[in-house]
Amino acid sequence: MSLAPIRILGVDPGLRRTGWGIIVAEGSRLSFVAAGVITPDDTRDLADRLAALHAGLSAVLAEHAPHEAAVEETFVNNNPSATLKLGQARGVAMLVPALAGLAVAEYAPNLVKKTVVGAGHAEKRQIQAMIAILLPKATYKGADAADALAVAICHAQHRGARARLAAATRMSA
Amino acid sequence: MSLAPIRILGVDPGLRRTGWGIIVAEGSRLSFVAAGVITPDDTRDLADRLAALHAGLSAVLAEHAPHEAAVEETFVNNNPSATLKLGQARGVAMLVPALAGLAVAEYAPNLVKKTVVGAGHAEKRQIQAMIAILLPKATYKGADAADALAVAICHAQHRGARARLAAATRMSA
Repeated sequence: MSLAPIRILGVDPGLRRTGWGIIVAEGSRLSFVAAGVITPDDTRDLADRLAALHAGLSAVLAEHAPHEAAVEETFVNNNPSATLKLGQARGVAMLVPALAGLAVAEYAPNLVKKTVVGAGHAEKRQIQAMIAILLPKATYKGADAADALAVAICHAQHRGARARLAAATRMSA
Repeated sequence: MSLAPIRILGVDPGLRRTGWGIIVAEGSRLSFVAAGVITPDDTRDLADRLAALHAGLSAVLAEHAPHEAAVEETFVNNNPSATLKLGQARGVAMLVPALAGLAVAEYAPNLVKKTVVGAGHAEKRQIQAMIAILLPKATYKGADAADALAVAICHAQHRGARARLAAATRMSA
């Protein structure tokens, strides 16, 4: 893992609310940069809401210029309509950093919780308590921004292993 | 409904194969312009596949400059993973024309089939037979391009009613 400071964008996507968080990882040291929630007007057509999500995430990328991105991998069981909506938001949330040339990692919710809290079934208040410890200067409103910061922290912890795996795969190919 | 020629993009989205078709509607007369299938490399990361879908649809928009777009509204029942994948592709398929300033309509698969074939449970070969009648100059490869042309035809039939409804809603607001 490089010790140069890496700026990481974490995203918790959703059509009604997409949380985002930016942290800096310098070796094992993490620091908070910014976090927020994008809330497309849900009285608009779907295409307009996706365009608003695109605009919101593009503004975050323009302002904070992250080096890498990570997106939560969740899906909604047993509700195809909700899963399709989430997928549409998630497609845009992955596309925007990809178009900016960033690598976009995906992490399952259980891995995010396990990495941040130490338990795969942590509750939201446990996640927020751990963020207060890991990123003491973090200020944000709402669970979606907290979840996005947790995804960014998860990527900071796992990106070294991912990079080593990718290098090993290239060597064996 | 305006009698000026309207160029319509129809899209049948999918992460492995996204069909697209361009037709011109001039009053009730329809004509074929182009159709094809975008097939992102499925050995790549999800974000790269979504970026490839974005690039493919952007190229279609740049070449054919449609005025309006229509996307199929399907979802996959009882398979959350497949539904999420479809949603991600669909999010990008709706975003690209929205960013270009086009209105993007959505049509359920049964309405598309009913409009084009006359029955909500038409088979793919029936759709292709009707496209050969409605768009005699159409040349394309594969069911996905045919489905995209069917979505465009569906929009050509329904856009007048949609426009009248929107105008009535504005008047009563």
